[in-house]
Amino acid sequence: MSLSAPALERADANLPASLERLFDLIRIRSISTDPAYKDECRKAAAWLVAELSAIGFDASVRDTPGHPMVVAHNNEAGEAAPHVLFYGHYDVQPVDPLNLWENDPFEPAVREAKSGRKVITGRGAADDKGQLMTFVEACRAVRETAGKLPVRVTILFEGEEESGSPSLKPFLEANAAELRADFALVCDTNMWDAETPAISAGLRGLVGEEITITAADRDLHSGYFGGAAANPIHILSSILAEMRDADGRITIPGFYDGVEETPDEIKAIWDKLGRSAEDFLGEVGLKKLAGEKGRSVHELTWARPTAEVNGIWGGYTGEGFKTVIAAQASAKVSFRLVGAQDPAKVRAAFRKFVEERIPEDCSVSFHEHGGSPAIQLPYDSPLLNTAKDALSGEWPKPAVMIGMGGSIPIVGDFQKLLGMDSLLVGFGLADDRIHSPNEKYELTSFHKGIRSWIRIMDALANQPA
Amino acid sequence: MSLSAPALERADANLPASLERLFDLIRIRSISTDPAYKDECRKAAAWLVAELSAIGFDASVRDTPGHPMVVAHNNEAGEAAPHVLFYGHYDVQPVDPLNLWENDPFEPAVREAKSGRKVITGRGAADDKGQLMTFVEACRAVRETAGKLPVRVTILFEGEEESGSPSLKPFLEANAAELRADFALVCDTNMWDAETPAISAGLRGLVGEEITITAADRDLHSGYFGGAAANPIHILSSILAEMRDADGRITIPGFYDGVEETPDEIKAIWDKLGRSAEDFLGEVGLKKLAGEKGRSVHELTWARPTAEVNGIWGGYTGEGFKTVIAAQASAKVSFRLVGAQDPAKVRAAFRKFVEERIPEDCSVSFHEHGGSPAIQLPYDSPLLNTAKDALSGEWPKPAVMIGMGGSIPIVGDFQKLLGMDSLLVGFGLADDRIHSPNEKYELTSFHKGIRSWIRIMDALANQPA
Repeated sequence: MSLSAPALERADANLPASLERLFDLIRIRSISTDPAYKDECRKAAAWLVAELSAIGFDASVRDTPGHPMVVAHNNEAGEAAPHVLFYGHYDVQPVDPLNLWENDPFEPAVREAKSGRKVITGRGAADDKGQLMTFVEACRAVRETAGKLPVRVTILFEGEEESGSPSLKPFLEANAAELRADFALVCDTNMWDAETPAISAGLRGLVGEEITITAADRDLHSGYFGGAAANPIHILSSILAEMRDADGRITIPGFYDGVEETPDEIKAIWDKLGRSAEDFLGEVGLKKLAGEKGRSVHELTWARPTAEVNGIWGGYTGEGFKTVIAAQASAKVSFRLVGAQDPAKVRAAFRKFVEERIPEDCSVSFHEHGGSPAIQLPYDSPLLNTAKDALSGEWPKPAVMIGMGGSIPIVGDFQKLLGMDSLLVGFGLADDRIHSPNEKYELTSFHKGIRSWIRIMDALANQPA
Repeated sequence: MSLSAPALERADANLPASLERLFDLIRIRSISTDPAYKDECRKAAAWLVAELSAIGFDASVRDTPGHPMVVAHNNEAGEAAPHVLFYGHYDVQPVDPLNLWENDPFEPAVREAKSGRKVITGRGAADDKGQLMTFVEACRAVRETAGKLPVRVTILFEGEEESGSPSLKPFLEANAAELRADFALVCDTNMWDAETPAISAGLRGLVGEEITITAADRDLHSGYFGGAAANPIHILSSILAEMRDADGRITIPGFYDGVEETPDEIKAIWDKLGRSAEDFLGEVGLKKLAGEKGRSVHELTWARPTAEVNGIWGGYTGEGFKTVIAAQASAKVSFRLVGAQDPAKVRAAFRKFVEERIPEDCSVSFHEHGGSPAIQLPYDSPLLNTAKDALSGEWPKPAVMIGMGGSIPIVGDFQKLLGMDSLLVGFGLADDRIHSPNEKYELTSFHKGIRSWIRIMDALANQPA
């Protein structure tokens, strides 16, 4: 019997009360984008501070220029214990169109879904009130049975995640010493499926660039000049086309520097997850994998870098036809980065690639649209494997380490501002309808999510140094 | 002494009065695009009818749904004589911005330009009132000396050329029998330079196409789908890039069917005209010839076909950045045609070229934007050579046969609806500022233009059958 068995039993016994507390939180209309709900946001923060204070945290509402943060500490485990920062957000998305909701979004309940499974309905049930409460209730069950938490815990709940987190970076910078821990636990992601927990071990980075190619100093008549004058749309098209070869590889010299092959055993696990190209692309009306040939959906979207044109424009684009050779053509291009790819080097390599292809009487200008490196925990990281084992003990199927194709800004901020890795574990499902009407969170996600955190805290406390 | 010598002398003697008549016409504010000047357009038509009637034409104002046409006939030469249709337009461009005019645009005068040359100033001085009056005054001088014209002449003056000629085609169709002649004389073009008359022997044709490539059935997130899902901007860029090879040749199979090499002697003449790439492109801030390698400016713009992208758009094109993979990307593409290229075949070949490059899970749609074949008089055509010799007798330098890169719709309409070739002879100069403030027509253009038509009519009448 594991050390956490009493806490797990307590969590089961607490479930009805845990749900009532979650419902209380969901009833608070903490819509961060709408100034009309400013007081509700503060009310949610205060409610959380009260709850955390009741279970042994030194908790406070912390003002920002926007909605307040909640910061709470529990150091009962002692200075020698591992120290985690748990992150979640108490704000929610707006609820319109309200008429599409089958139930009042702020009157939560456990209902039986068409799937036959029990779900918690309401705005924020999954994103992120239900998720963050799994951790709070886990702490409660542990403290009620063991008298204290096995690890040092700092909690950070944000109230602006759904509105761009304007206060987050300044707050992290101003409170770095207080918030820095050994690593962060971020609970805002999904399971692989209803039976399989997932840990996101990698997040792709991003480099955004905008380029404008200028040929003539004015728009030209394509009859008079056509065939003799440079057309910037041709130049742009050719460069974009040249950027990838027939096998879908990016041809920019040095682009793949820092990209490592995914270990075979990880690829084997991904293959077993069984998401085919048809599964993945079929939902959006496609069926054939684009991009690098000979790689699976998971490799392509989690572990390989990309170059995508996100926008292109030039010349006449209105109704009808205009026989013009444009003076300029532009594109927005982004690169998803993996492994150790350096955003600054990728940007420089792209610019050089473009510049080398601009005819001598034409010119190009570049505009930077941000850049961040990939975040990748080594697949053999003890942190990852401890969490994986703990999760595998709770759920019907073993936990899988996956990647994420996009970026989660908070993870980059923790890395950059606090020097901390993040463990991304969440219990949402793809069909939770977050940001949409009829948001739900599986009752199993909530219940076993609580139990999962009990196991993870226990495992972290007992992890060999 | 040529047969036309007395008429030429009379034209010289008439010049002051000819100018006064041109001034009268310029004073009529026949701006066809502005409904406020509707009555002025009719007034110009009536004025022309009166002038033509006074010199032996059976002339009338002919109503259309828009501004009226002027049609006039003179058959004094007898049924056996060649029959020409002379085309010009009496409407003019608007004059704004008025404050940029150095003189009242509707108060014409002969003034000394900075060039030291005498010029006729005013809106329409060159485009096209000054040009069409060269022919009217030529007819006058011939009739005053020979008693009749040496060729049968039908005149068609349009009043909607500057506003898209909406009434022209229906009018040509409805009056085909009346308007059909052996060939048309179109006087709305330029000389090569102030000393060198030019005849446009070829006009490029045009095929316009719009294509839209559809990949997914919605816009996708480039983090989640990037690397796996087809990006229609990539597909479009690649197709456009593939459409031309490294030497600037169009790679669409069959595209060059019907394209013939320009005869060496014509190329030699063009080379002697001495317009370098730097001359031609320098005015618009470029210096290097794009398009097919190893060909001169004149070949590229007059005698070679092109494929130009006139517009391109797809994805996010606003401020900032959006990490989207667009569902669709579009382009407007046009082909300039030469020789015997068939617009329908070029369009079909392009569509096949595109369709073959669309991935099986994506699609493409096409939208047609018109098509017309090139018009090319054989360089050894007797008509061309007769006119060339006549012009060469008048001007300091021999006339040159040139091409035109763009289309002149009237020439295509004459070809298609009346089965007539057109001889394009005009006396404008590139710096006449047509459509701009301070439009002018060289006094020499007007004077020697009149004399040129006298010579041309004489030569046509005496042309060996």
